Amino acid sequence: MKSELYDAALKKFGQKLRDIRKGKKLSQEELAHLCQLDRTYIGGVERGERNISLVNILRICKSLDISPSMLFENL
Amino acid sequence: MKSELYDAALKKFGQKLRDIRKGKKLSQEELAHLCQLDRTYIGGVERGERNISLVNILRICKSLDISPSMLFENL
Repeated sequence: MKSELYDAALKKFGQKLRDIRKGKKLSQEELAHLCQLDRTYIGGVERGERNISLVNILRICKSLDISPSMLFENL
Repeated sequence: MKSELYDAALKKFGQKLRDIRKGKKLSQEELAHLCQLDRTYIGGVERGERNISLVNILRICKSLDISPSMLFENL
């Protein structure tokens, strides 16, 4: 269930993901390849347009070699 | 996409949610009511059987009055 109430939080989450990905010098395409997700999906998550699932959050964190709690700091 | 690779992490996440909910002296039914989700859904998440979405994680955290990063500590 995607809710407009959480649009701002999804955007913030996506922005944090983007910042961390760029900090690791990875393109969306490279990250997508590492976690076996689609580049357009990664882009949608980074723009806060996708209501990402827990398993995909964990896949991305594993590929970025970060702890999931990092993505949720100050959310 | 639910992946068997992440079953252990989903179970750990669910157990942490259960511990926090019990620490707040809430039943599954009470938490479900607070976040407007189904009690059986909360039960499934706590047992690690559901691949919960980001919006639902945020709804639950808001209802428990905790920061999302709390649910991801040591995951």
